[in-house]
Amino acid sequence: MDRRKRLFTEKRTVRWGDCDPAGVIYSPRVFDYAMETLEIFNREILGINWMDLNFKRGYGVPMVRTEVDFMGLLRSDQEIEIDIHVSDIGKSSVTYLSHGFDERERYFRVKMICCYISRTDFKSIPIPHDIREILRRYMGTGSVE
Amino acid sequence: MDRRKRLFTEKRTVRWGDCDPAGVIYSPRVFDYAMETLEIFNREILGINWMDLNFKRGYGVPMVRTEVDFMGLLRSDQEIEIDIHVSDIGKSSVTYLSHGFDERERYFRVKMICCYISRTDFKSIPIPHDIREILRRYMGTGSVE
Amino acid sequence: MDRRKRLFTEKRTVRWGDCDPAGVIYSPRVFDYAMETLEIFNREILGINWMDLNFKRGYGVPMVRTEVDFMGLLRSDQEIEIDIHVSDIGKSSVTYLSHGFDERERYFRVKMICCYISRTDFKSIPIPHDIREILRRYMGTGSVE
Amino acid sequence: MDRRKRLFTEKRTVRWGDCDPAGVIYSPRVFDYAMETLEIFNREILGINWMDLNFKRGYGVPMVRTEVDFMGLLRSDQEIEIDIHVSDIGKSSVTYLSHGFDERERYFRVKMICCYISRTDFKSIPIPHDIREILRRYMGTGSVE
Repeated sequence: MDRRKRLFTEKRTVRWGDCDPAGVIYSPRVFDYAMETLEIFNREILGINWMDLNFKRGYGVPMVRTEVDFMGLLRSDQEIEIDIHVSDIGKSSVTYLSHGFDERERYFRVKMICCYISRTDFKSIPIPHDIREILRRYMGTGSVE
Repeated sequence: MDRRKRLFTEKRTVRWGDCDPAGVIYSPRVFDYAMETLEIFNREILGINWMDLNFKRGYGVPMVRTEVDFMGLLRSDQEIEIDIHVSDIGKSSVTYLSHGFDERERYFRVKMICCYISRTDFKSIPIPHDIREILRRYMGTGSVE
Repeated sequence: MDRRKRLFTEKRTVRWGDCDPAGVIYSPRVFDYAMETLEIFNREILGINWMDLNFKRGYGVPMVRTEVDFMGLLRSDQEIEIDIHVSDIGKSSVTYLSHGFDERERYFRVKMICCYISRTDFKSIPIPHDIREILRRYMGTGSVE
Repeated sequence: MDRRKRLFTEKRTVRWGDCDPAGVIYSPRVFDYAMETLEIFNREILGINWMDLNFKRGYGVPMVRTEVDFMGLLRSDQEIEIDIHVSDIGKSSVTYLSHGFDERERYFRVKMICCYISRTDFKSIPIPHDIREILRRYMGTGSVE
């Protein structure tokens, strides 16, 4: 059984404007791709978009640390899938892993550690209960490498 | 006497990541370049940055219309200058012209029409008096083509 | 009968990172949105992506002029559609119109004039016959405002 | 004696369009800032820009791994300095550290590992001798944390 099928995955085509004169993706764009996939994951899986999280619920989720491994060169027009794993849930922080891949190859792996804060004083807060529950259930669905 | 010398001008080097696989600047980046120069113009010439304009004084200055003419191909590492002219001051709107050039050539011309609005109801307002005065004085300094 | 249905249209959600501290889309991103839709139009309707056009067929299609009208403020998470009209076909140049809209409102209108050139000498060339034919047929499908 | 003075450092003002609706820098832009500083370092310290490195000398320098630590929130209009350290020189790869800071605070730390490859077969190659020499001399100038 393919466990990957149960993970949140976004299809995406590498854009001309994301590539540089060497003909491959400009490396900072890989962080953009992972971050944009995480944004959709928040909206679709956690059920709350970043606008509402910030301005209705009063939380922020700044990035604390990001690691990007570049494993294969991506070129314009290549179609890839980008997944989101939840690999760790702390008191205030969540660690996500995101891979860019197609049937043949894995192109990148991005680890993103975010921290829940209050917008009032910008101090870290415990992950809100409802969000923690969804993260916990989602975390059980996928293998993490 | 060189009237261009009296205009606000920013030096800038075309970046690798702003160019596409064809080896030239990705065209939307030209709008970014002009907009970023306008941002510096606001801070240095009008004396107010966009953060303070929005959050201390309660105004917004959304773009209403932009026209970009691409006259020459820009490549990575090229050094250009980008100027800002005030070409028209209306009741609520200001028209800026911005050119990208070096000694040999003009590469682009960007016309930007912005409108002062109140952040309370997002309706247009007269250009604040102090800003209008600075715009008027600045407008007298440069020829506009 | 709805002629809009027969036009190439891409759905898109305004991204958090495309919006600025004022909470609305940073205006140069509208040019990016139109350009990215045109890129997909080239691949899906003209049947040739920009990589192949440049490096297999030896053409370039630089932007000559762009006009952007901003009609409504777009915010993060808004879902819009972006269409592509062919409004004029010249000897070497093609004029596209692209609108961003939803059921209630039109948010932007972008006019893009591109010119076919040879990559050998960067001089304009007649639009290749096969591409001209597709553009002509497509042009008949949609009303242009 | 201040060793930092001897390091390559670029001044930069955080841009409005690099910040998101939460009012702080959109985190992927930090990778852009470090990468753009590295681009200038290549041009000014290594004495070769990426265009010439790729198309005159036939090398590429793709990113292999990037780590970003976000230590402080950056807002629009903040003036920071961004430095470049060489922290390790391998057979084919170079490890750079880049910090964003002002007098009061350190805002980010970016580790970038790049690898020299041949553009002919995209295989790794030893760092070219002249570049290795400059890197080695530069590496001696600064402390690395």
